Amino acid sequence: MKRERNSGIWDFELGIQAEGEGQDLILGLDGGTTSTVCICMPIFDFDDDCVPPDPPPVLARAIAGCSNHNSVGETAAKDTLEHVMADALSKSGSTRSSVRAVCLAVSGVNHPSDQERILSWLREIFPDDVKCFVHNDAVAAMASGTMGKLHGCVLIAGTGTIAYGYTEDGREARASGAGPVLGDWGSGYGIAAMALTSVIRAYDGRGPQTLLTSRILHQLELSSPDELIGWTYADPSWARIAALVPIVVSCAEAGDEVANSILLDAVQELASSVKAVVCRLKLCGEDGKESCPLVMVGGVLEANRKWDIGKEVISCVSKEFPKMVPIRPKVEPAVGAALLAWNFLKKQS
Amino acid sequence: MKRERNSGIWDFELGIQAEGEGQDLILGLDGGTTSTVCICMPIFDFDDDCVPPDPPPVLARAIAGCSNHNSVGETAAKDTLEHVMADALSKSGSTRSSVRAVCLAVSGVNHPSDQERILSWLREIFPDDVKCFVHNDAVAAMASGTMGKLHGCVLIAGTGTIAYGYTEDGREARASGAGPVLGDWGSGYGIAAMALTSVIRAYDGRGPQTLLTSRILHQLELSSPDELIGWTYADPSWARIAALVPIVVSCAEAGDEVANSILLDAVQELASSVKAVVCRLKLCGEDGKESCPLVMVGGVLEANRKWDIGKEVISCVSKEFPKMVPIRPKVEPAVGAALLAWNFLKKQS
Repeated sequence: MKRERNSGIWDFELGIQAEGEGQDLILGLDGGTTSTVCICMPIFDFDDDCVPPDPPPVLARAIAGCSNHNSVGETAAKDTLEHVMADALSKSGSTRSSVRAVCLAVSGVNHPSDQERILSWLREIFPDDVKCFVHNDAVAAMASGTMGKLHGCVLIAGTGTIAYGYTEDGREARASGAGPVLGDWGSGYGIAAMALTSVIRAYDGRGPQTLLTSRILHQLELSSPDELIGWTYADPSWARIAALVPIVVSCAEAGDEVANSILLDAVQELASSVKAVVCRLKLCGEDGKESCPLVMVGGVLEANRKWDIGKEVISCVSKEFPKMVPIRPKVEPAVGAALLAWNFLKKQS
Repeated sequence: MKRERNSGIWDFELGIQAEGEGQDLILGLDGGTTSTVCICMPIFDFDDDCVPPDPPPVLARAIAGCSNHNSVGETAAKDTLEHVMADALSKSGSTRSSVRAVCLAVSGVNHPSDQERILSWLREIFPDDVKCFVHNDAVAAMASGTMGKLHGCVLIAGTGTIAYGYTEDGREARASGAGPVLGDWGSGYGIAAMALTSVIRAYDGRGPQTLLTSRILHQLELSSPDELIGWTYADPSWARIAALVPIVVSCAEAGDEVANSILLDAVQELASSVKAVVCRLKLCGEDGKESCPLVMVGGVLEANRKWDIGKEVISCVSKEFPKMVPIRPKVEPAVGAALLAWNFLKKQS
């Protein structure tokens, strides 16, 4: 067994090991700024087409808090990662000696140095023959739409937004994802900030009146638009502002021109991120006419409204790349991460 | 003498009082988030036109730190205000018994309740017959351009931006000044954030190449645009970002289309704040053809460049209000505050 970094974490293995080795497993992990999910997947037989079962089998699932080292620091992030992996294994009644591969997709992993640091830490925890993979969390989102194949474009639009592209020969590119100061306008934060700005502009005479004023003030229990200034200063959390997106959508659905125009701008911004990535990597070929998956995830792109932002993004992208294949994943990103590792093992075998 | 709130602060008066009463004085104070300036002005004779001498006489000047209660809390803000007033009086060799009027123009004073609180605190410090005035700092900027007359529009564009308007019968209106989240786009922060965004967009393929990339990276000693993400996260100070405005101006002057378009947008935004205020208060009359002062202050509006943002704002505003009279103040805001009090005394006499 490997040295015990946090011996308490792995104590559960002592009871299990006595019962002998279990089934071969893969750990898939999706680590974000809000929460971290680890799932434990049994290694299933490859069918003739090498397509994973639908839905893919999941033995156990564990959840923990933030594992972005930029937010909580490297030590706390690693502690969270180790706990949630041990928790998933423990719930599945297995030990590290059953694990064949681990795939960590963690937000904040942006440079090869981040990747290398987490990889060597992983190798201290798991036996030497375990295959370890470390990626950005966008990779898990991508793989959750393509059942583990890292090829195509993924557009994530929640509180923030980012687009990633991956070629079959391992090149990648990104667009947006630079945070609110640097103009992630199609993000939930961006949409809501534009809506709040429109309320202020209507109030001080710079812009047209809008239904957003009454609906947002009602939602926030404020009596006047100038109270929005104190409201935004009181708590700089982007997620708190992004939570207003459903109001913007409902105002646009009610025919409000200001809200409608904010959403149309967001669609252009999100589509431009996708198009930039597809162009740079030539994901749709030299002529832009080849087929390529476009995985779409995040609250902003959810298709539960009459005014469907995701659908409009697809329509906008399709004008330039008519054979992009939009995919809304049916499995969660942690499963995508596990399928990515499964895909690798499959190729090896 | 009034009760000693901070007895140490006013100890210097003991030595002076023995020498008897001095010349009648006015204290004018401009309190901002970065610094606070207090000047001590002798009460000069009113000439026949009731026009103050040019330049107005200043006996002493004192400077201190932040006095915005939203930034440092009420206690620290009052402490700064009291210290800087005592310092100015002490430097002029006078005591509170020589003071006829005090005019405090402090940023963060937005509601009548703020005003009332600071007024009653001032009345505890100064003798009962001293006239006390408390305003927002925009009032001092306005008065610095009109030699103490509170009528017209003032446009402030530094790190942030705000426009205030004042009618001769005491009504007022404002536009912008809501902070970066709520879209103060023409501000120094707004201009620089758009420039940084353009660098990211050029880098990830969403936007055209721009001279801003090399000039900004050189200035910040970064080697790649993706390092800008870390740079903006490292320190959320708006002033640090706004400090990039001169680079945007120099790129526009060098013919860069992206920088040029950012400045043109900023001009539109700043002009729309002025126009909103002028419209709401009918400062140029019902037909928009009457004359009205437009006081322009702040680093963004300084006329030291070929690409002159202030001049373009005036040109844009003049299309709608041809008789706006642009004024770049020759005295500092603290002097404007003192002149405002002088104007009041003049009317009384």
